[in-house]
Amino acid sequence: MLPLEVLERAQTELTDWQSSGMSVIEVSHRGQPFVECAHQTEAKLRRLMELPDDYRVLFLQGGATAQFSVVPLNLTAPGQSACYLKTGSWSGKAIAAARRQQVEVQILADQAESSYTSVPAADSYSVPSDAAYLHYTPNETIGGVEFDYLPQTGSVPLVGDFSSTILSRPLDLSRFGLVYAGAQKNLGPSGLCLVIVRDDLIGHARANTPDLFDYAALAKADSMVNTPPTFSIYLLDLVLNWVERQGGPVELGRRNQAKATALYDAIDASDFYANPVARSARSWMNVVFTLADPELDAVFASQAAAAGLTNLKGHRSVGGMRASLYNAMPMSGVQALIDFMTDFERRQG
Amino acid sequence: MLPLEVLERAQTELTDWQSSGMSVIEVSHRGQPFVECAHQTEAKLRRLMELPDDYRVLFLQGGATAQFSVVPLNLTAPGQSACYLKTGSWSGKAIAAARRQQVEVQILADQAESSYTSVPAADSYSVPSDAAYLHYTPNETIGGVEFDYLPQTGSVPLVGDFSSTILSRPLDLSRFGLVYAGAQKNLGPSGLCLVIVRDDLIGHARANTPDLFDYAALAKADSMVNTPPTFSIYLLDLVLNWVERQGGPVELGRRNQAKATALYDAIDASDFYANPVARSARSWMNVVFTLADPELDAVFASQAAAAGLTNLKGHRSVGGMRASLYNAMPMSGVQALIDFMTDFERRQG
Repeated sequence: MLPLEVLERAQTELTDWQSSGMSVIEVSHRGQPFVECAHQTEAKLRRLMELPDDYRVLFLQGGATAQFSVVPLNLTAPGQSACYLKTGSWSGKAIAAARRQQVEVQILADQAESSYTSVPAADSYSVPSDAAYLHYTPNETIGGVEFDYLPQTGSVPLVGDFSSTILSRPLDLSRFGLVYAGAQKNLGPSGLCLVIVRDDLIGHARANTPDLFDYAALAKADSMVNTPPTFSIYLLDLVLNWVERQGGPVELGRRNQAKATALYDAIDASDFYANPVARSARSWMNVVFTLADPELDAVFASQAAAAGLTNLKGHRSVGGMRASLYNAMPMSGVQALIDFMTDFERRQG
Repeated sequence: MLPLEVLERAQTELTDWQSSGMSVIEVSHRGQPFVECAHQTEAKLRRLMELPDDYRVLFLQGGATAQFSVVPLNLTAPGQSACYLKTGSWSGKAIAAARRQQVEVQILADQAESSYTSVPAADSYSVPSDAAYLHYTPNETIGGVEFDYLPQTGSVPLVGDFSSTILSRPLDLSRFGLVYAGAQKNLGPSGLCLVIVRDDLIGHARANTPDLFDYAALAKADSMVNTPPTFSIYLLDLVLNWVERQGGPVELGRRNQAKATALYDAIDASDFYANPVARSARSWMNVVFTLADPELDAVFASQAAAAGLTNLKGHRSVGGMRASLYNAMPMSGVQALIDFMTDFERRQG
C-alpha cells in the first residue's frame, strides 16, 4: 500500500518529469537530474533515520532475499561462523541461504517449540565474540512476531532484516553493523532493496562476489555499478517526502502502535477471534488472527474483500487471517476492519 | 525511451488498476490479477518472439549485469571452460564476471586490434565441442558495433546478451541455448531482466547458487522465488501490446533498419561527420559518430540538447557522439537529428 498522494504525484508527472518532456522511467541514470534525485533520496533517508556518518546507504536489486546470500558473501570467509536467531519463515530462509554460501551457521535460538509465536528472551542467548555477525529478523511478517528489543552483541556486528519495519518507528542505527530492507512494504515499490552498512564492514567481500553485490564496488559507484531501478528510487523519494510530512518515524511509530493496539484489543475482547502470539512479541505491522471456526476463513476473507478489505488471507503456510498495517495504512482502515470483524462475529451469532 | 501511448496508459491507471481501487504497484504479486498479468506478459512475449515450446521465460532482477555471473553459475562447474567473443565493453565485463566465478574463459576472438570497431568474421573461429557455451554480445552499445550473423556453435549452447536488440527485429531463438536482456532499452523500465533458456540447460546450477538466481528454482516458482519487480513486468506488458500493434518484430526490424540507414547515409555523405565502425558491423541501435573537430563535441551536444535532441554524448570511455535508435524512437526523431547535424555542419562552414 502506498500513500494516495504519492501515487497521485507520480501519476501527474509520469509523462513529464521535472519539465524534461520525458518520463522519469526514460531518463538516463547517469544524467544530472536523476543523479540529483538519487542523492536527495539518500540525504532524506539519512536525515529521517538520523544515520551516523560512518554508515553507507546502498540501493540494490533482488529484494531482501538477495541479501540472504549477499550478506554472507560480504561479511564472511567460506567456513567462517555467523550466528542466527530463528523466529519464523524469513529468518529460516536467511539461514538456508547462508549455509549455501558455506557459512558455519550457529542458531543461538530457535522458537520452534512455540510454533514460532514468540521471540527468544534477551538474556537467553549470548553471541560468541568470534562470530562474523548476529543476524535476526526484527519482524516475521508471516507469523506476526516481532522483537521488542535490540539484541546485545558486544563487539560482534548486529545484522537485521528490516524489510517490514523500516521507518515504521525510530531506530537506533548505531547499534547495527548492517540493516537491509526490501522496499515494497514501507518504502515504495518492489524491485528495490536498501542496505545500510557501517564503513568498517565494507571491503571484505569474497573473491567470487559479483561486482553488483560487492558492497565496496557499490559504495564506490554510488550504487550505480549498472543501471539501477530508477523508477523505484524515484518512488522511494516521494514516499520519503510523505514520511517527512507525517512527522517522521516518531509520529509514524505513535500511529503504528495505536493502530496495532486497537486491533489487538478488539481481538482480545472477542471469544470469536484469537491471536496466538506471545503478548510481548506481537507485531505492529502484521496482525495475525484466527476465527473460532476455521471453516469460516474463506467466507470471512471473501466478505471482507467485498467490503473493500483486501489481502486478509494469512500466508498459505500458516492459514488464518493476517492484517498488514504498514505505514500507509491509516487508522480509519484499521477501524473499518474492526467494524467488519465485529459485524461478522455478530452475524455468526 | 518508451512509446508515449504506453506511458499515457500507465499514467491513466496508476492509481486504479483494473478497477481494483489499487495501483498495480500496490497489488500482491501472489494475487490473481497480477499473476494473470505476468502470465499474459509471458504469453505475448512467446507469441511475438515465436518461441519454441522447449524454452522457459524467466523474469529476474539485477539487469543483464547480474547475468554475467548468473549464467556461469547455472551453466558451468568451477574450472570448466566456456568461450567468449570479445567485441567491446559489455562482452569484456561478461568475461571478467565469468572469470570471477572460476570459469576457464577461452576468448575465441578479440577485436582489440580494430579498437573494437568490428566483429570477428563468422569463419575466423571455431568453438571446441567441450565448451560449456559460447557467449557473445550481439550489439555493443558503447562502440556501436553489431553482429550481422548468428555464430555457429555446433552442439555447444549459444548464449547472447540481447539487452539492446531484443524485439528490434526477428530472431531465430531455436539457434540459442540462452538469451538474456536487461529491459531498459527496448522492453520497458530498468530493474527487470528477461532470461529465455532452453529446458535442457535448467537444473545444473552450482550448489552455492542463491535460489533467486537458480534457473530451476525460478522456473519452478514462475519467476516468483521472491517478490518480483511487479511494476516493471506490468510496464513490459504494455510495451508488448505496443510492439504487437506496430506489427511485431518484422515491422520493427524494417523501421529500425530504415532509421539506421538514414543516419549512416547522412554521416557518410558528409566530410564533417564520420563513423569508425566496419560497414558490416554497424549497429542499428547505437550509431556512433565523431565530428571533424573534437573540440566542437561539447557545443554540438549542448546545442542539440537545446533543440530537444538529448542523450547524444558518447560514452565517457570513447567520447564522440552516439545516437540510440531503440524501438520507441520514431523515424521523425532520426530525421530531426539529421536536420540538426546538417544545419550544425553548415554553421561551422
